[in-house]
Amino acid sequence: MKNFIDLADMPREQVVELLSLAERLVHKPEPQALAGKILGLLFFNPSLRTLASMQAAMARLGGTSFVISAGQGTWQLEMRRGAVMNGAPAEHVREGVPVLSHYCDALGIRAFASGVDLQADLAESSFNEMVGLVNKPVINMESAINHPCQALADWKTMDDLAVPRRAKFVLSWVNHPRALPLAVPAATVHMAAMRGMDVVVLRPEGFALPPAVMKKAADAAAANGGTLRETSDRDEALSGAHVVYAKEWGSTAHYGNAEADAKARSGLADWCVRDTWFSRAAVDCKLMHCLPVRRNVAVADEVLDGRRSVVQREAYNRMVVQAAVLHQLLSTPTH
Amino acid sequence: MKNFIDLADMPREQVVELLSLAERLVHKPEPQALAGKILGLLFFNPSLRTLASMQAAMARLGGTSFVISAGQGTWQLEMRRGAVMNGAPAEHVREGVPVLSHYCDALGIRAFASGVDLQADLAESSFNEMVGLVNKPVINMESAINHPCQALADWKTMDDLAVPRRAKFVLSWVNHPRALPLAVPAATVHMAAMRGMDVVVLRPEGFALPPAVMKKAADAAAANGGTLRETSDRDEALSGAHVVYAKEWGSTAHYGNAEADAKARSGLADWCVRDTWFSRAAVDCKLMHCLPVRRNVAVADEVLDGRRSVVQREAYNRMVVQAAVLHQLLSTPTH
Amino acid sequence: MKNFIDLADMPREQVVELLSLAERLVHKPEPQALAGKILGLLFFNPSLRTLASMQAAMARLGGTSFVISAGQGTWQLEMRRGAVMNGAPAEHVREGVPVLSHYCDALGIRAFASGVDLQADLAESSFNEMVGLVNKPVINMESAINHPCQALADWKTMDDLAVPRRAKFVLSWVNHPRALPLAVPAATVHMAAMRGMDVVVLRPEGFALPPAVMKKAADAAAANGGTLRETSDRDEALSGAHVVYAKEWGSTAHYGNAEADAKARSGLADWCVRDTWFSRAAVDCKLMHCLPVRRNVAVADEVLDGRRSVVQREAYNRMVVQAAVLHQLLSTPTH
Repeated sequence: MKNFIDLADMPREQVVELLSLAERLVHKPEPQALAGKILGLLFFNPSLRTLASMQAAMARLGGTSFVISAGQGTWQLEMRRGAVMNGAPAEHVREGVPVLSHYCDALGIRAFASGVDLQADLAESSFNEMVGLVNKPVINMESAINHPCQALADWKTMDDLAVPRRAKFVLSWVNHPRALPLAVPAATVHMAAMRGMDVVVLRPEGFALPPAVMKKAADAAAANGGTLRETSDRDEALSGAHVVYAKEWGSTAHYGNAEADAKARSGLADWCVRDTWFSRAAVDCKLMHCLPVRRNVAVADEVLDGRRSVVQREAYNRMVVQAAVLHQLLSTPTH
Repeated sequence: MKNFIDLADMPREQVVELLSLAERLVHKPEPQALAGKILGLLFFNPSLRTLASMQAAMARLGGTSFVISAGQGTWQLEMRRGAVMNGAPAEHVREGVPVLSHYCDALGIRAFASGVDLQADLAESSFNEMVGLVNKPVINMESAINHPCQALADWKTMDDLAVPRRAKFVLSWVNHPRALPLAVPAATVHMAAMRGMDVVVLRPEGFALPPAVMKKAADAAAANGGTLRETSDRDEALSGAHVVYAKEWGSTAHYGNAEADAKARSGLADWCVRDTWFSRAAVDCKLMHCLPVRRNVAVADEVLDGRRSVVQREAYNRMVVQAAVLHQLLSTPTH
Repeated sequence: MKNFIDLADMPREQVVELLSLAERLVHKPEPQALAGKILGLLFFNPSLRTLASMQAAMARLGGTSFVISAGQGTWQLEMRRGAVMNGAPAEHVREGVPVLSHYCDALGIRAFASGVDLQADLAESSFNEMVGLVNKPVINMESAINHPCQALADWKTMDDLAVPRRAKFVLSWVNHPRALPLAVPAATVHMAAMRGMDVVVLRPEGFALPPAVMKKAADAAAANGGTLRETSDRDEALSGAHVVYAKEWGSTAHYGNAEADAKARSGLADWCVRDTWFSRAAVDCKLMHCLPVRRNVAVADEVLDGRRSVVQREAYNRMVVQAAVLHQLLSTPTH
């Protein structure tokens, strides 16, 4: 494994092996495995879980980390090619990213979608440009259209809870005060399909995932014995569900248009997961969410505080699977 | 010791033991005692001493730390129960705090008073709610009404300087451009009383400490051979003082009312500690302050730069006593 | 070596030894040399390279670091002597700096020029006051008029590239949207002179380096077999150059006057290094820059992305030479 950028870069068996390594490191910690190694963490966007869990994973393996947050302690970084840099950003990623890569043994990067140009975001043009500037392993800590650390943690969470491979997995759009990126829904639908599940994307009109995202997930389903479909019929989607994965994202019909997005979601306040959503679900149906979650906007207190919620295990597993990723990238004698 | 939240949770002997451990670790460092352990540090408010001294204490014992600052690199966190989260905070402490506790072996939390509702602040409702969400040891890095790390450092400072147990300890209100929380004065008066000192709270009218704070300190005095009283007579209070502990706090008569507080302090600019304050004090009377201090507003240059000031030793002792707390919480095989 | 504040504090041989140590540590790492040691990093100004490379250098030697950023997580710090502190800064450096020095074994400080009072900036009055408050080794991470870590890294970069001692070194002023400090140009011209090079300072009228800066560099040249002169004739300066070191700085004729500075640079947009600048330079002439650099304002893409640019090696060498500095300050049994 050279980088950890997209679960789709790996065959299913390699993901399964990574999850086994993660489990092994929980039970047989290796507190010196990465002694002397340095992890650089570059954030273009705020973070809680990622910031803490990456450092914790590295520390548990004996390594150390440094954190650079563009716009917080460090100036803003320019991403546009050919820019005449007479504005706010004082440094271009073409300098800043390779510089940071000199100082570390692996570099994690978080860079959310522009939210303006859907095609550029789907193409991961900014993230890929940065990856091309680094000659050390890169870890995707959430890019425009992907969040493989979260996807891997969620896969492990379902394994931990013995959710069957062919269980019904419903990714449901939920409400939020404003448009959020497509990274987690895209990564989630692909992960569930790659796990071989029966995946349903439930979303209101105007919020369909982009065709390229659905196509990638459908391919993963086809290759791994799963299925994929989408619907706006909530009752039908939730019926018999084993997992409801709630996630907020922006209107794809009005991508980058905050006003139109606000209008599109104006009548959708009932897309807040409540206990009633589970009335026809499987008896032990779980509620998953990557966090952060807006309580009583996206998911009601009663669900987050109830027996179905496994959001804490998902968050815990972030550290667990990232330790495996770091171990894989940095401890093998041949990397 | 399960948590370190309030000196009042411990009998006096346990505090004395903790101070002995702190002293022992200075003279016989244990650079591997917490190897492999991770300290999480969650700040809702700015910090200098706490941020640096907690990391330094952990490092000197061989452990590592990560820092999360709500609103700086991490989004704001919601504390209100049942909130419909459609405002600025992107995550509730009910998610964020347990998540962080998964990634560490002990969690330090700094969360100042609301400054709005005195009863809620006195009840430590926010802080206690967070403590209830964590299944790891919690360290209070300053809550609404307490600052046990500071209190312990100050106790050690007086021991280092051989200030007698029954010495006269004057906690004096001093001026500040605006209302500050009650955490340090409340912790200080309780600590001095628990140490068994003759404690005088000196403050202008309108700035009396809340009855609950005085009651808790009076109980500690009674149990440990000390005394406690309050006055607004500066000359009388300072006469024969062995320690003057200067501290700024908001008007309790106008709690949460910035305008009334400003008016209440408008004539109080002479509540800035100057050399003349010590004219009838004990010859070797010390000036203590927890820092940060507004020079020439709360304490004059002549005092801070003079022979009476022990503020640097207090700050140094923050690291020293916190090392003992971390050692106690994390190194014992039975914790 | 007690502190690392100014290359001028050392004889040339000591600099050469430090560069040898740096090289040795690259080839024979000492991952335990600073085990148990703590580096404090105090930033009054933003940083990318310094923030990451100092932590990385410390980690590669087995030590740990903590970071304090005034105004980011920590309140602003007051520097003025005798200030009545009723404004924004909550703490004076006279408290904050010694406090931090208690918690670490060496303290790095970054504090840019005021940009208001040239004489005070040239005198390093703020920085020197802070150094005087610390009883541990201090590392200058960029002060008003100096940046010895950068200078040392640049010296090493030229050694790595076998740039001859008597090569022609042109420090050229380049454009920037606003006035920047004199720290890097002052440190660079002195470093090149101390290395024994033929140094030319190329700058438009109104941007001459202060006489005190030129005098210090001239003395270093005289002592070490180099030469120093200045000119505004670009063609003549660049002719035969072996190194072009591009750097932005503010008008010294209008120091602290943003409006006059903007006017002074209004016609200077062609002071952006392009390939054409090298038409009469030495065939293997290098482009150096300390970074961050404004692409297509200070240096064109074609140069930064071309074969002459050695900015990445300069940045890499920051970590390399700082490791030597830390090793020298902290690992010797006699420090």
